[in-house]
Amino acid sequence: MDKLYVIKIGGNIIDDEIELSSFLKSFSAIEEKKILVHGGGKIATKIGDKLGIASKYADGRRITDTETIDLVTMVYAGLINKKIVAQLQSLDCNAIGVTGADGNLIPANKRPVNEIDYGFVGDVDTENMLAIHWEELMSAGFTPVVAPITHDGRGQLLNTNADNIAQEIAKVMSRFYDVSLIYSFEKAGVLLDVTDENTVIQNINPVSYKELRTRDKIFAGMIPKLDNAFTALQSGVKKVIIGKAENLSGLIDGSTGTTITNE
Amino acid sequence: MDKLYVIKIGGNIIDDEIELSSFLKSFSAIEEKKILVHGGGKIATKIGDKLGIASKYADGRRITDTETIDLVTMVYAGLINKKIVAQLQSLDCNAIGVTGADGNLIPANKRPVNEIDYGFVGDVDTENMLAIHWEELMSAGFTPVVAPITHDGRGQLLNTNADNIAQEIAKVMSRFYDVSLIYSFEKAGVLLDVTDENTVIQNINPVSYKELRTRDKIFAGMIPKLDNAFTALQSGVKKVIIGKAENLSGLIDGSTGTTITNE
Repeated sequence: MDKLYVIKIGGNIIDDEIELSSFLKSFSAIEEKKILVHGGGKIATKIGDKLGIASKYADGRRITDTETIDLVTMVYAGLINKKIVAQLQSLDCNAIGVTGADGNLIPANKRPVNEIDYGFVGDVDTENMLAIHWEELMSAGFTPVVAPITHDGRGQLLNTNADNIAQEIAKVMSRFYDVSLIYSFEKAGVLLDVTDENTVIQNINPVSYKELRTRDKIFAGMIPKLDNAFTALQSGVKKVIIGKAENLSGLIDGSTGTTITNE
Repeated sequence: MDKLYVIKIGGNIIDDEIELSSFLKSFSAIEEKKILVHGGGKIATKIGDKLGIASKYADGRRITDTETIDLVTMVYAGLINKKIVAQLQSLDCNAIGVTGADGNLIPANKRPVNEIDYGFVGDVDTENMLAIHWEELMSAGFTPVVAPITHDGRGQLLNTNADNIAQEIAKVMSRFYDVSLIYSFEKAGVLLDVTDENTVIQNINPVSYKELRTRDKIFAGMIPKLDNAFTALQSGVKKVIIGKAENLSGLIDGSTGTTITNE
């Protein structure tokens, strides 16, 4: 099977023009197939403030009302996505910017209202997300650049977590490819000592993970990320890599960051 | 050759939710291959006003400065494009929203500065626009929905006239398809009497066009549109149709609007 890299970058890179441009150079230099998933960044909040759209939160989570879904669609799928695409094109990477609505790439369900109404937030409809739709783009030679917006199939766009999107793409594409899922992260990897960037754990597998957790060596904030990583591995993803996207080639060759595998 | 409809809609439809939704129903009902090109509409100006980005004009033409290219990228390629795509998906039309940067579909050149500096405005680089890039999307079963943004190949997005984009796509695709280019228009077609919607000229060809012009029967504002139509026909486009997009099936079957052909 051919290799495929699914790489997620977040706000810390998107908000920094120089860092983004340097990342995109490394990304375009990857010779294997690749998919880039980007998050939002602070610019949506900045533009929202100017438009008088206040960021609303419940229990620390952003609520996406009608104005907010319009805002994030503009900023994520328009401004951020197309700037990345234009830059990648200038680097001879045949990027195509998409949301989950385009080509029905990521069907999603509006999150049900229980205690909190998150508004127009979508959770990926894993069952109806088809690898073949992605493969049509990939085999035509395009490099998808994915904005974190999905749709409900009934005409409604939905705000969706970029980490989850990257994971679902990695899972579904593992039918066709030997997939590595790379999460760009503000730290150098999973750290033994959360205050010391020199304590990156280079490899984690289920056995060492269990041991590290027994010894209480995993920082609480990392546990959901690692649990998600193992879920992805169980669904066929070959490797999950966590670390700084500034050193993308190091993450890929395993010289930096934390590589999580099932073996 | 298979038929392909390249259809351009403007602000008058985009700004009216009910009309847009009705148009998209007719569009999705077209069984042949199709490409939708949309313009901007008033919403960009509205959002620009809120963001404190004043619309600037020189000689009646909009100037696209740095803030304005960001604005139109957000609104055209983000908000308008993705809302259209989500609606088409709900109508079982496998739409994919693109700008000219995506897949390098529409390379363009920044308009040279002569008397006026139009800023980040692009003219389609016809020579380097390749039908094969479009055909890759079409043959994969996607229906492209095109926002009027192009790129210069060096990372810069450019604001580009949607009528011209539609025309260039129609021209380039006539290598692969029997192309009809449809311009949605605020009037019922080319009128013999510009004040009377009942005087639509049903068919125009080079002979009747010459005669109409000799008799001074063509409204001055229509002349550049008709000249463009004949240029498209000379480049291989089969038909150019001008009329109200509200009656799309009528435009297609020739029962409404003005059909311009070379014969």
